[in-house]
Amino acid sequence: MKLSGITRHVDHLIVQWPDGSSSRFHYVWLRDNCRCNRCKHAIGERTVDVLSIPCDIAPTSVVVTDGLDLAWPDGHVTTYEAAWLRANSYEVDQRPAPHRPILWRKELAADLPEISYDDVMHSDAGLLAWLHLLRDYGLCFVRGVPTDPRTVVDVAGRISFLRNTNFGILFDVESKPDPDSLAYTSNRLNCHSDLPNREMPPGLQFLHCLVFEATGGDSILVDAFACADELRRVDPAAFELLTTTPIRYRYSGPDSELSARSPIIRVDADGELFEIRYSNALLAPLDAAPEKMIDTYRAIHSFAGLLQSSDFEIKTRLRAGDLMSFHNNRVLHGRDVFDPNSGHRHLQGCYVDLDDFLSRIRVLERLSGPSSA
Amino acid sequence: MKLSGITRHVDHLIVQWPDGSSSRFHYVWLRDNCRCNRCKHAIGERTVDVLSIPCDIAPTSVVVTDGLDLAWPDGHVTTYEAAWLRANSYEVDQRPAPHRPILWRKELAADLPEISYDDVMHSDAGLLAWLHLLRDYGLCFVRGVPTDPRTVVDVAGRISFLRNTNFGILFDVESKPDPDSLAYTSNRLNCHSDLPNREMPPGLQFLHCLVFEATGGDSILVDAFACADELRRVDPAAFELLTTTPIRYRYSGPDSELSARSPIIRVDADGELFEIRYSNALLAPLDAAPEKMIDTYRAIHSFAGLLQSSDFEIKTRLRAGDLMSFHNNRVLHGRDVFDPNSGHRHLQGCYVDLDDFLSRIRVLERLSGPSSA
Repeated sequence: MKLSGITRHVDHLIVQWPDGSSSRFHYVWLRDNCRCNRCKHAIGERTVDVLSIPCDIAPTSVVVTDGLDLAWPDGHVTTYEAAWLRANSYEVDQRPAPHRPILWRKELAADLPEISYDDVMHSDAGLLAWLHLLRDYGLCFVRGVPTDPRTVVDVAGRISFLRNTNFGILFDVESKPDPDSLAYTSNRLNCHSDLPNREMPPGLQFLHCLVFEATGGDSILVDAFACADELRRVDPAAFELLTTTPIRYRYSGPDSELSARSPIIRVDADGELFEIRYSNALLAPLDAAPEKMIDTYRAIHSFAGLLQSSDFEIKTRLRAGDLMSFHNNRVLHGRDVFDPNSGHRHLQGCYVDLDDFLSRIRVLERLSGPSSA
Repeated sequence: MKLSGITRHVDHLIVQWPDGSSSRFHYVWLRDNCRCNRCKHAIGERTVDVLSIPCDIAPTSVVVTDGLDLAWPDGHVTTYEAAWLRANSYEVDQRPAPHRPILWRKELAADLPEISYDDVMHSDAGLLAWLHLLRDYGLCFVRGVPTDPRTVVDVAGRISFLRNTNFGILFDVESKPDPDSLAYTSNRLNCHSDLPNREMPPGLQFLHCLVFEATGGDSILVDAFACADELRRVDPAAFELLTTTPIRYRYSGPDSELSARSPIIRVDADGELFEIRYSNALLAPLDAAPEKMIDTYRAIHSFAGLLQSSDFEIKTRLRAGDLMSFHNNRVLHGRDVFDPNSGHRHLQGCYVDLDDFLSRIRVLERLSGPSSA
């Protein structure tokens, strides 16, 4: 890639590209992002301090080569390759498109994303295939997992270190005599995300079925991004309210007392969905302003109605050796009531954060190149 | 506490309190927060589903006792104590006041918050005193810590389990031959928060000095909440821009590639400061819209100028046996350049998240009652 030409202006220059498009680059930005070995350490961290560069700096000379050579008033020289400039253009319409999730409804039940334990554990290609399914669908079943206790730690450990919480790095989901969570009863659990009562709930959840002899207890899954997307279309006022009104969740156990406040639906600066926090069990008393209380309940009803709608819901029965992996803050999970006297049901679970999941994808893709499932 | 009386309206009632104030409570809210053992499990989680309660529900009868007895159309009965209603009032002027940090400038150097290792390790009162100092000042030195490796894990472990990151649960800060972070060189580090390139940077940081024989390398600390508060006063436009413009940070090492985008200054729904992310070393090329690029640089300059101002900065030299604990996203830390040939400098560090820190305070206060340092 080459530049076709430039034009200079007071505080920026405009680069013309061979395809006819153009990009503005401000001088302060061009000096700030100098990638020479005095401005950037060999390990990739910046050593030039942004505060040392005047906001009105201008180059004393600009030379178009294949890229761009700039000289600065203090004699420092900065060199850019055209491809780097193009890749880092901050023209709004030239930024890389965000990776969009594949939204799904109940029809996904006929073709659940899945992969084999052997593929995940014994090849990087299999691992990456799993991670791409998880990234795109927010959900992937790993089949044929040995039912030895703690195996879920090894499987999730293929991605990264695990996220610890007040329930421990590894948690056992079974009906217990003295439960400290509804998960550890035989109750029905409506679809929910785990730990919305924390500043940052875990990003990925892994649930490995070791034993399932009980009657009932089918797993329920719903793509809450698909529901939020539908809500935005059918009830935009509720969507707006749920993306802007912080809702408190809380948990109080013998050894911990955790509380966090966040909108139920979170969108990023570009309006893309990135996090759903929803757990009826952990809702604190709503503290919306009195004038907004009824509207807040109506908006929650509108969204919860979609989350519990049969149009969106997948029901599936785990078998021993299945491992369900899902994006905790996108794909909500629940289960039907089960009869603990009819047989044992024992899952083991753990968490990995999205950061480390995405990092693993990027590092694996350095070798294989990006691809989609 | 008792109610003085109530008046009923279409979708809510108004409670009059003995002090002359009054609170609105909507019927749907009153039904939704029923605390009977059919609506709430013994472990404290909700079993009543918000979706099962019509938004226009109204009680068939309301009886004022010391508290309030409500009967619902399906025969369900809900009982409230007056004190619970008062404590959960959602009238804007009746909510509990947020706990405010004690902001500080360079003058704090004369009276640094500190506590002894023995107090922290051997009594819950000492532990709570430490946690209150950390909560209020965002900074506390623990003195007299044995210089055995890994002791920082035991000290931070008094609070909670530790937060793992790509640098490990325990990290060694010393000049290394093949560094994967500027922290592991002898370079000067300007004040920064750790890991702003993660979705959620760690909440608390602990740095324990084992050996310090090198020349130079003084620690630098600054209360970035105080700087942000000053910025809000002296340059409100920069404050507004920095609280609303997401800035990307990134790190790329041999085994990880992490990237996150967030405003540099984050305020909660009530406008209270809760997180500063700032690390010059990890800044990605700014991708503000071209029209806002110069303003974005100016705003960063305005804030970074305060962060580096001598009015705000504390300089202190750690001694072997000192442990510096601080709120990673409030009190930024740095160090002067040091001469690795003049002697060894070895710190060990780890992290704990704010959730678990605040949880520990709440659980300790169940026994001792809340108090401030």
